[in-house]
Amino acid sequence: MNSPSPLEHIRIVLSRTSHPGNIGAAARAMKTMGLTNLTLVDPKLFPHPDAEARASGATDVLASAYVCASLQEALRGTVLVAGLSARRRDLAAPFRWARDGAAELLAEIRPDDQLATEVALVFGNETSGLSNEELALCHFPIMIPANPGYSSLNLGAAVQLMCYELRLAAGSPGTAPSGDAVLATADEVEGFHAHLERVAIASGFLDPAQPKRLLPRLRRLFGRARLEHEEVSILRGLLTTLEKPKLRRSAKSSDGLKKS
Amino acid sequence: MNSPSPLEHIRIVLSRTSHPGNIGAAARAMKTMGLTNLTLVDPKLFPHPDAEARASGATDVLASAYVCASLQEALRGTVLVAGLSARRRDLAAPFRWARDGAAELLAEIRPDDQLATEVALVFGNETSGLSNEELALCHFPIMIPANPGYSSLNLGAAVQLMCYELRLAAGSPGTAPSGDAVLATADEVEGFHAHLERVAIASGFLDPAQPKRLLPRLRRLFGRARLEHEEVSILRGLLTTLEKPKLRRSAKSSDGLKKS
Repeated sequence: MNSPSPLEHIRIVLSRTSHPGNIGAAARAMKTMGLTNLTLVDPKLFPHPDAEARASGATDVLASAYVCASLQEALRGTVLVAGLSARRRDLAAPFRWARDGAAELLAEIRPDDQLATEVALVFGNETSGLSNEELALCHFPIMIPANPGYSSLNLGAAVQLMCYELRLAAGSPGTAPSGDAVLATADEVEGFHAHLERVAIASGFLDPAQPKRLLPRLRRLFGRARLEHEEVSILRGLLTTLEKPKLRRSAKSSDGLKKS
Repeated sequence: MNSPSPLEHIRIVLSRTSHPGNIGAAARAMKTMGLTNLTLVDPKLFPHPDAEARASGATDVLASAYVCASLQEALRGTVLVAGLSARRRDLAAPFRWARDGAAELLAEIRPDDQLATEVALVFGNETSGLSNEELALCHFPIMIPANPGYSSLNLGAAVQLMCYELRLAAGSPGTAPSGDAVLATADEVEGFHAHLERVAIASGFLDPAQPKRLLPRLRRLFGRARLEHEEVSILRGLLTTLEKPKLRRSAKSSDGLKKS
């Protein structure tokens, strides 16, 4: 049996949202990060075509959203609640930054959780944010580090950012996909450097009696680039062509590499 | 002289954006994270009222945006370029995840940079993303870890997330603001526990001959909560009231705490 993702145990709660477009944007943001559990407290307009439009491919999240009248009702059954806040509040618990707050919410969900513990993350109204009464229902406020001179994130953008942090808190994204490139082996790279040196000397560009730092510098450059197998083939093909007597090169230039 | 923020050296480039609203959302996202340097390559509609509307308080970023015809022109003068990509590309350099890519861009900017080095982060068209030709102008692609089944972030949301990572890469957000709470000192907390024990015994709730685990459990609870100075005052006030003979308590209940 596959154990469900801990992300399914996170309830995203949007309280008193004014613009239905933002509800759609939030649903899309959630789904891109693997969250699907959306609750709406007293939305001004919902359902609404603007919500559908901005949700793009995440209309399923909207369709399964739970709509209720009060934040108390929205939080029923959750064991830990955090609320987004853009400003300091006198009577609130100490703030957590977004990353730490996400980790704290995730830590409450155990992978083999038989009780299906749910935690909640609450976002307030676009203009006024969470009221003090709403924030009092949260265990702690979360603040997104922002420009102190302009900290007003769009609601959908704030949901995107928090769901991203929750996804990362739920598990490392793993090794970055590296494409299909096959790196060259050390002997392939050495073969290339020997070839390059030969051509450089034969052409008169490199004086073997006074080599200076030329070869080490080229080595440094190609080392940094971490040559791929196919790139070594291409470079050696080029060197081989350049090694050939000028006459044959000129003859070949019409259908191959141009020579200036 | 104040050294300028490294964030001012990051050029956000939006290429061939279709919806002007997304340009506005990107401007707002940038400004919330302290970035202001925006370049638009061949936008479909710009300037446009939708851009202004979605920019909210960041219309200054729109007003100072540089508009040009090609990505080559947009990248002039930058020393390191990363491009967002939602999918693997055969011929691209290895991917970086958002967080690592942001750190790599930031690392290129030295705080005392006399040359005012600029780096760029490029976002492609909403529907098609960056073309292979555009991505070939980038040193590496950046991928936002996402739900493999639905990885389509809104453009503004992707800009928000990357600017957030860039802001964090530019410096820790510092200690989370903790509000104005003054924590109770150890002796204040001990005074409270002694008072609580006295009241618990006097009321008959705690049998000192068989104390069991009651006091340690209460200690654990209040220890976890990290009592504040003012909270200790309130709790001790409550205990003091409860200690008084019932008669006086009843008399007081009309203007103070209700007694059931």
